[in-house]
Amino acid sequence: MNVTVRGHTEHFRTVTFDAKTNSVRLIEQRLLPHEFKIVGTKNFRETAVAITDMIVRGAGAIGATAAYGLAQGALAFRGGSLGKFSAHVDLVFKTLAAARPTAVDPVNAMNDVRRQMRAGETVAEQQALALAAAEEFANEDARHCEEIGRHGAKLIRNGMKVLTHCNAGWLAFVDTGTATAPLYAAQAQGKKFHVFCDETRPRSQGATLTAWELAQQKISHQIIADNAAGHLMQRGEIDLVIVGSDRVLGRTGEVANKIGTYTKAVLAARHRIPFYVAIPLSTIDWNLKRGFDIPIEERHESEVLGAWGINPQDRREYIRVANPTSGARNPGFDVTPAELITGIITPAGIFKPAELWKQRRKLGSIS
Amino acid sequence: MNVTVRGHTEHFRTVTFDAKTNSVRLIEQRLLPHEFKIVGTKNFRETAVAITDMIVRGAGAIGATAAYGLAQGALAFRGGSLGKFSAHVDLVFKTLAAARPTAVDPVNAMNDVRRQMRAGETVAEQQALALAAAEEFANEDARHCEEIGRHGAKLIRNGMKVLTHCNAGWLAFVDTGTATAPLYAAQAQGKKFHVFCDETRPRSQGATLTAWELAQQKISHQIIADNAAGHLMQRGEIDLVIVGSDRVLGRTGEVANKIGTYTKAVLAARHRIPFYVAIPLSTIDWNLKRGFDIPIEERHESEVLGAWGINPQDRREYIRVANPTSGARNPGFDVTPAELITGIITPAGIFKPAELWKQRRKLGSIS
Repeated sequence: MNVTVRGHTEHFRTVTFDAKTNSVRLIEQRLLPHEFKIVGTKNFRETAVAITDMIVRGAGAIGATAAYGLAQGALAFRGGSLGKFSAHVDLVFKTLAAARPTAVDPVNAMNDVRRQMRAGETVAEQQALALAAAEEFANEDARHCEEIGRHGAKLIRNGMKVLTHCNAGWLAFVDTGTATAPLYAAQAQGKKFHVFCDETRPRSQGATLTAWELAQQKISHQIIADNAAGHLMQRGEIDLVIVGSDRVLGRTGEVANKIGTYTKAVLAARHRIPFYVAIPLSTIDWNLKRGFDIPIEERHESEVLGAWGINPQDRREYIRVANPTSGARNPGFDVTPAELITGIITPAGIFKPAELWKQRRKLGSIS
Repeated sequence: MNVTVRGHTEHFRTVTFDAKTNSVRLIEQRLLPHEFKIVGTKNFRETAVAITDMIVRGAGAIGATAAYGLAQGALAFRGGSLGKFSAHVDLVFKTLAAARPTAVDPVNAMNDVRRQMRAGETVAEQQALALAAAEEFANEDARHCEEIGRHGAKLIRNGMKVLTHCNAGWLAFVDTGTATAPLYAAQAQGKKFHVFCDETRPRSQGATLTAWELAQQKISHQIIADNAAGHLMQRGEIDLVIVGSDRVLGRTGEVANKIGTYTKAVLAARHRIPFYVAIPLSTIDWNLKRGFDIPIEERHESEVLGAWGINPQDRREYIRVANPTSGARNPGFDVTPAELITGIITPAGIFKPAELWKQRRKLGSIS
């Protein structure tokens, strides 16, 4: 999307690849909203660390980063032995797959790249195919988000108040985003509406990233504490909820997403507010049989015990908020059952959660 | 309760009165958990500001502070005219009542003091009665919290995991607290259990005050993001919820409490987890007919847009977390309907919300 830095507006993607330096180039999202900066990783291990440390985060963005990271790792291989090359690519794959265990996009994206690589008969051919496949994955991610916007914009009417959780915006994908795509498309159609961004503790992606995105696009919005949505729903101040997802189970329609999503779905159901989940097809896991089995990443307690922000000297700083002799639990995700979800907005249209499995051929299941 | 500062343990109340200097003495709760300090207010206006600025917060604590503040204001009056004195006391009352508009305790406490003052026939007599009434209010608050503990401890069994929201601990009352009173009583009975403290954004009273209290009392606990309770309930990791309240409607059983309480009640009902509200009788509002009419304080957006904590130089500091070009909504409280509440723990026993009105004579309604 367009970013305005010091009065100058330019189009950016969250993830690109620089073939000259064999480097994955990323918007350093931990510096946002306070600083806009592009960083490059030197090798696939640095790319994996960038995913773990959340320089880049969000389903599609880490999918594309892993795809590029696999190509980066493949391209760094020296020698002609296909056997050794294949073992090396396995190592790259495993390293990148372990960077964020709850997400399904990196694995899906890398499986895609690896499948296309196999058409090559030499190491050099496979290396070239890996990069081409990663580029294609990134382009497709951007196209799919535009399609999500086209379908989802129909849900937004003039004067609506829309709640979103965490960041499933363009920063979470290669471009346009999923939960935000309907907003951007509705805005382009001239619709007027207001967005409430859950701040999304502990990492505050709503207060930092989604709010920054909406401010950049001049969409009317306010940040709220994660505690406040229930009250606003009670008072009739929320008409629609749209969130993203890190993994949707194709067999059950269950949705894994940022911790707190389940809570918002329970509240929305109680108040009969439509609750939509916007995803690219790569977010669908066609194999897993129950949401309970989705691994829930337990992150470091320091995220809950403090906060990152800008201090009075205008520098980025971590402060300790909590009692210094107390610890924390920090599950990063939760799972929302299908019964609480009004619809899944995909590039192929809007589906009831229970319809996914019936439509699995159309939605690209290969199982 | 007992506080250990630099290895030395001493008993403290949150609010006391120093008659020599006509000063209300308060634990400066905004410095906790990082510093333990007692401050004094010079006059009733400073006392009102201490309530508004949350040097002191919590239903009973601000009730006692307002009672002492009314006595402080009355004692500062010079002259013998009962008419002028009464007008002065009205001004003191209004100033203190406006300090936190959602809470009912300050008004109830001050009505109590004013009623007892009327037995005096001179200004001096009324002044002396005001102080005696305020002292009695504080002592009664502490006694009532102990009674709440005695009744509530029965709900806690060995091995339980208990969720609490915000701080309705001894820091929120004169001593012992309400939501924490059953915990302290159960601990005294030798029961073992674990407490999850919602961090309670935006002001983080759970992460700072409740966690500090529990650490001081050596009760096993962990802080969680407000987003995490739903997930823990899904996984069977929460057995009981106990919260406090700023106002319970005697006619309907509706409960006003810190923003986010309603959300936890909705989640608990879905998971069939008992949800209790612990209150002294002074928190019951016998007049208001519907929860919708409880004024919900809208606080400054800076609370949502940033956080207070300790910086790497060990100093207390506010950092800006959110996107600097975004604003926030910040409702301070929400209202939980009676249908979601398992029971109200009071000094007079545990009641279903719907029983309050039937038991109103026993529970001290004067209407």
